[in-house]
Amino acid sequence: MNYADVFTKAIDRLHAEGRYRVFIDILRNKGAYPNARCFGGHNGPKPITVWCSNDYLSMGQHPKVTAAMEEALHDVGAGSGGTRNIGGNTHYHVDLEAELADLHGKQGALLFTSGYVSNDATLSTLAKILPGCIVYSDELNHASMIAGIRNAGCEKRVYRHNDMAHLEELLAADDPEAPKLVAFESVYSMDGDIAPIADICDLADKYNALTYCDEVHAVGMYGPRGGGITERDGLAERVTIIEGTLGKAFGVMGGYITTDKMIIDVIRSYAPGFIFTTSLSPVLVAGVLASVRHLKASSAERDAQQANAAMLKALFAEAGLPVMPSTTHIVPLMVGDPVKTKKISDILLAEYGMYVQPINFPTVPRGTERLRFTPGPTHDEAMIRALVGALVEIWTREELRLAA
Amino acid sequence: MNYADVFTKAIDRLHAEGRYRVFIDILRNKGAYPNARCFGGHNGPKPITVWCSNDYLSMGQHPKVTAAMEEALHDVGAGSGGTRNIGGNTHYHVDLEAELADLHGKQGALLFTSGYVSNDATLSTLAKILPGCIVYSDELNHASMIAGIRNAGCEKRVYRHNDMAHLEELLAADDPEAPKLVAFESVYSMDGDIAPIADICDLADKYNALTYCDEVHAVGMYGPRGGGITERDGLAERVTIIEGTLGKAFGVMGGYITTDKMIIDVIRSYAPGFIFTTSLSPVLVAGVLASVRHLKASSAERDAQQANAAMLKALFAEAGLPVMPSTTHIVPLMVGDPVKTKKISDILLAEYGMYVQPINFPTVPRGTERLRFTPGPTHDEAMIRALVGALVEIWTREELRLAA
Ligand SMILES: Cc1ncc(COP(=O)(O)O)c(C=O)c1O
Ligand SMILES: Cc1ncc(COP(=O)(O)O)c(C=O)c1O
Repeated sequence: MNYADVFTKAIDRLHAEGRYRVFIDILRNKGAYPNARCFGGHNGPKPITVWCSNDYLSMGQHPKVTAAMEEALHDVGAGSGGTRNIGGNTHYHVDLEAELADLHGKQGALLFTSGYVSNDATLSTLAKILPGCIVYSDELNHASMIAGIRNAGCEKRVYRHNDMAHLEELLAADDPEAPKLVAFESVYSMDGDIAPIADICDLADKYNALTYCDEVHAVGMYGPRGGGITERDGLAERVTIIEGTLGKAFGVMGGYITTDKMIIDVIRSYAPGFIFTTSLSPVLVAGVLASVRHLKASSAERDAQQANAAMLKALFAEAGLPVMPSTTHIVPLMVGDPVKTKKISDILLAEYGMYVQPINFPTVPRGTERLRFTPGPTHDEAMIRALVGALVEIWTREELRLAA
Repeated sequence: MNYADVFTKAIDRLHAEGRYRVFIDILRNKGAYPNARCFGGHNGPKPITVWCSNDYLSMGQHPKVTAAMEEALHDVGAGSGGTRNIGGNTHYHVDLEAELADLHGKQGALLFTSGYVSNDATLSTLAKILPGCIVYSDELNHASMIAGIRNAGCEKRVYRHNDMAHLEELLAADDPEAPKLVAFESVYSMDGDIAPIADICDLADKYNALTYCDEVHAVGMYGPRGGGITERDGLAERVTIIEGTLGKAFGVMGGYITTDKMIIDVIRSYAPGFIFTTSLSPVLVAGVLASVRHLKASSAERDAQQANAAMLKALFAEAGLPVMPSTTHIVPLMVGDPVKTKKISDILLAEYGMYVQPINFPTVPRGTERLRFTPGPTHDEAMIRALVGALVEIWTREELRLAA
């Protein structure tokens, strides 16, 4: 057994497929987002504009957020010092869970160290607690949901993306007495489309299934208080469990679920990924509290984000660039080849100081490699026009395919 | 299918076994650890002394750590805004990985959102990449290692705790050509004993196995620079992968592995739990950098911790309390019953303002429920004597079993 051989081959495969990942080394400039500094390969840090941050509303630099974090840092220190059960349950955690439950109109909420862990821990535990549970999973669900379902070791049926006829076919084919859970996202982050949540809930009612909705790319950004697509469409009550992140629109880090008190108690008591880990730093939790409270009351960030996303989509279309039909704040340009996608990204960064990461397999299916732009409230019109101009120039230079 | 029924029964089981968990709601007082405030059930927060924090060296309140976090917060903001691959690779992350690799004398390091995730993601990915891999796991390994091995879906052999004859028996029985990995901890956190790492490495050499050592309860605390038991005993080079947390002795939050560049590259490229999640907040990473650098140069915290742990053990033994034979900074008192353990903890908190969480199943095996004390450099002799006095009083009042 030659271990080095196996490892080398695993890495060689990535190079051969043109999807070996190189991490861009940056620091964002607080107070001046989307401006940032890029390190490595030049003399000293180089100024860049970030076009692919998931700090969607620039809340990571909001004065209320940073002030709350600074206060917590000086009041209670850097870390929680323990798991939620052993010394790491701070008053900030208790307050934030109440705030998040209120945001979604649910009885309770539970914090996790990340959105990934909230999906993995909740789905795997739920499907283990319910004997014989079958999970119905949208084919484009995020890796963290796939991990949770896989780790549950339960039966799994994958339905075609947003295809309600297929979902019903699968539900109808199974034992009516078996516990069932339909798992989906509200906003799909790589395409920017939205699930038919009301239809999913109708099917769930008809077949006595629970529902699990990942609102990671929607919380903070949709609904009058930032409660996500389920708030915007008045559906929060119909979804059994809503899951979200604290690391994207809320600008900090962490994840959560909101649901009935009883399910919260089960996950809290049985999920190893919740139990056996140091809880979120109180500094982060304090920042998120300020962020959630701000976005409950203010729609200015959401409105500006939507306006800038609409402008970028319109200008891409006008220029004939292959913008995908997103109905949300996410603006993807289809390239369809990993090497070309990386090349465009490299030119943008090196020649224009504009940073957008190439998105390749396994994040998206092979052959659908793309550039994914996330304009926010702090990108201005000049930046947007400059980006479109740069891409038109690169598209021409590289003889890339325009929109059909 | 009645979902509420299943959930209610799951919770009822916990109550029936006396192990339903109630989280104590606290805030630690920065600058005055181990002092803290306890909320809930009284008029306003009540002052308490914390005896069960895993912020082992009080680094969470170290001025260098909080200053570094404040500086990062104001320079770059609250969160990273992305995954490591998509916008979330900050210069702090790059620096900390270099610092941790140096701490352990390894070629590289990789950060994760927690120690739990580092174990789960690394073990599950490694055992998937190596076809037919067999993992040999100490029976007392932490839940996060068990999760990683389980999620790999590979063959697993559990060897009796620290039992080298048993480990060898299992290794010898398997195909010599099969890839093998021995997974263990250096310091076992609930008993306070240490693995025979040199013997494990000898066996690994003999049977051509990789080794994985969880140093979560040792990093920062053992070895002249805080490199853990593997540094103290000069064994870091012999262990393939060393894993640690940033949330215990380093006082903040997060996890990591250190190993060869090639293995780092494989995990970085293939582990969903590393790839598909918002990276650690740069504020946390900056704090950890300061903490690791401080503890590389200073042994004062380590020495004071060892002195206080020795004092507490000696006074427990002198008082006839059933202190377990720990050889580390961890001081467990065996009670052996979940209801009694919780009762002692409740009395300590309510009457004495001393907080130690009862440790019950599934954290420790049933019948070995205990109180686990973690004296650190900031507990003084008066506090230690007061704790022993309180426990002697409660032991007498409750007619509990003394040491044999
Ligand atoms: C749909 C979806 N769910 C969950 C996650 C994980 O959330 P977090 O970054 O907080 O781990 C992500 C991305 O990171 C995501 O895109
Ligand atoms: C042995 C061991 N490994 C890993 C972990 C997880 O580390 P973290 O708290 O950083 O998730 C813990 C405790 O939390 C532990 O005790």
